[in-house]
Amino acid sequence: MNILRHAFTLVSLGTYNVGRRTKIQHVRGFVLGTGLGLATFASVTYAHAEAAKVNRVLNVSKFMAEPITDAKQLLGDKDDMRHRMELMIMDIQADFCRALEAEEFGGQKFKVDRWLREEGGGGVTCVLQDGDVFEKAGVNVSVVTGMLPPAAVQQMRARGKELTMGVKLPFFASGVSAVIHPRNPHVPTIHFNYRYFEVQMPDGKKQWWFGGGTDLTPYYLDERDARHFHKTLKSACDEHDTSYYPKFKKWCDEYFHIKHRNECRGVGGIFFDDVDEPSPNACFDFVTSCARAVIPSYMPLVQKNKNIEYGTNERQWQLLRRGRYVEFNLIYDRGTKFGLYTPGARYESILMSLPLHARWEYMHAPKETSKEGALMKVLQNPKDWI
Amino acid sequence: MNILRHAFTLVSLGTYNVGRRTKIQHVRGFVLGTGLGLATFASVTYAHAEAAKVNRVLNVSKFMAEPITDAKQLLGDKDDMRHRMELMIMDIQADFCRALEAEEFGGQKFKVDRWLREEGGGGVTCVLQDGDVFEKAGVNVSVVTGMLPPAAVQQMRARGKELTMGVKLPFFASGVSAVIHPRNPHVPTIHFNYRYFEVQMPDGKKQWWFGGGTDLTPYYLDERDARHFHKTLKSACDEHDTSYYPKFKKWCDEYFHIKHRNECRGVGGIFFDDVDEPSPNACFDFVTSCARAVIPSYMPLVQKNKNIEYGTNERQWQLLRRGRYVEFNLIYDRGTKFGLYTPGARYESILMSLPLHARWEYMHAPKETSKEGALMKVLQNPKDWI
Repeated sequence: MNILRHAFTLVSLGTYNVGRRTKIQHVRGFVLGTGLGLATFASVTYAHAEAAKVNRVLNVSKFMAEPITDAKQLLGDKDDMRHRMELMIMDIQADFCRALEAEEFGGQKFKVDRWLREEGGGGVTCVLQDGDVFEKAGVNVSVVTGMLPPAAVQQMRARGKELTMGVKLPFFASGVSAVIHPRNPHVPTIHFNYRYFEVQMPDGKKQWWFGGGTDLTPYYLDERDARHFHKTLKSACDEHDTSYYPKFKKWCDEYFHIKHRNECRGVGGIFFDDVDEPSPNACFDFVTSCARAVIPSYMPLVQKNKNIEYGTNERQWQLLRRGRYVEFNLIYDRGTKFGLYTPGARYESILMSLPLHARWEYMHAPKETSKEGALMKVLQNPKDWI
Repeated sequence: MNILRHAFTLVSLGTYNVGRRTKIQHVRGFVLGTGLGLATFASVTYAHAEAAKVNRVLNVSKFMAEPITDAKQLLGDKDDMRHRMELMIMDIQADFCRALEAEEFGGQKFKVDRWLREEGGGGVTCVLQDGDVFEKAGVNVSVVTGMLPPAAVQQMRARGKELTMGVKLPFFASGVSAVIHPRNPHVPTIHFNYRYFEVQMPDGKKQWWFGGGTDLTPYYLDERDARHFHKTLKSACDEHDTSYYPKFKKWCDEYFHIKHRNECRGVGGIFFDDVDEPSPNACFDFVTSCARAVIPSYMPLVQKNKNIEYGTNERQWQLLRRGRYVEFNLIYDRGTKFGLYTPGARYESILMSLPLHARWEYMHAPKETSKEGALMKVLQNPKDWI
């Protein structure tokens, strides 16, 4: 089916490249496509594919690419949390990519790479680069199995997880993550990540938990925007537990802190890890609500601000702040570090979070009374938005 | 004397700002100046200062700023390795800054910040930003004393040093380091660092060692340039021990390796640490030779290439490679990580190594047959240049 689909796309759109190496070669499989390739295949391709019936039942035709897990398997046990999570994150990815594409003036589309991992699983990486509205936007899904190295087990124990030390443990991890860097300095950058983790213990028992968060990084502070963003996240949390938002808002401020500069990356949002109560279903529903809140929390800010005029000063300030974003991601972000230190990791999917451009000036400090200074004040002293 | 000098500079050049907080406030002292300030004070100021006689004996008037250690102390025990090192690195800093300034078309000068550290010692940070020839050039000297935290002791033990665990140990560290990012993509970036370290053991004994290195990061490969650079470093090494160059060249290739991309940062040079044989004097002489080799290894490449024409493609490629430079420095470089994790570190002096601009494109890969591809081949397979 893969071959059929690829061949069709190649013929019909003429912009699609396929590279797939066999497992025998011990090289991870990969599929590359241009923006016009995979991103738009779904509506045309599936009608022609032999497996179209299966796909129609699962309604995967709206996804940016085929799910990682075989369609029959996904169908087979719909109650399996792994499968529910995979379908949810594929759905979130597609909805968000389409929402972003709709904001582009010139019809720019996401480039879609579906990749497989020799050790087990794979992912779908969608990137829109050099758009009119989005300078660099990356939305990634991964569904991965393998053996957790002892170093990773130790890191998780340090966070309070009761995992057996000194041995490799079988694990499953899936998640959706995105970083959107708009071109206009009046449109904030957004990041979100929602993930599900399972580790098999030597006694056969399974440890599982959810993690995630959504946070906003404005270049110029519009307090109404920050409030709208936080309110939307709070509503998503409150549906499940009114203690969540205050707790996870604080955690977010603490996590996205650039220690050496003593400033936060942005105006925060929510961040959580190790969520495994009260039940798997309740946790999944909570994470789903948060993921569904991304579009209503962010897209109104894009629509409201993307046409505001700006000049060189605003652009330079945006690039300086993007330098800080790079500092946080490469020095402190646990996900990035964990990913880059993992042998065989797909570094292009990890580093898609980096902006197209960044700038570092020695000893740059905006005037306290300037608009830039007003932002700095909030980054240095996180505030409550609601 | 400080006040005298500052007042004079302020009046005569009108571009100089002074900020100094007292120790009582528990804030590190700092001094800020513009390019026209401290960088040119030496020839005019010292003739007017009361302490001029002491300075003239030491010939510090050529330095970019006053040394960190009091002039009388430096005079007092000229055989003390700490003092010899401080004078040497101040000298190297001044020579290199002046050599770089001489290449600028518009007479751009280094901005000089002399800073003090509450815990003990301080440094002189020189930065030339937005020059015609040098987009960002940083040359830093630091002379620092304090207590080595247990985590740092452990890191040094991991490298083979026999240090007592679990306690804070008094230490002394001094060094000169520089990163020069030229504007023209045909001029390579250079980095060097030469340092001296002492740790006082609980039994009163002193551990000491030298470390350092110089390495080159071209954007376009000119094999003659790479050979000239390596030959100059080899000559400096060979004066002391013919086994040094091959050993330290290999160490350099291994150290400046961007693991997640499986490529080197540049075409290498030399890198070494823990050098404490055959004697303190011999080690100091070796490090001095290496530091003195920086100008003859690099300035001819600047002069030869700085006027070569280039276009947008070359500039974009340079910015992408600068993104890799940022990745190495923030993810892997021991000095940067050690610095940023040290409470109270002067992060502006550490991060002056970052370029003014950098770029990250998703899945960028130059054609193998292009000039960019030719560079990549060498970065992926370090070669012998002599």
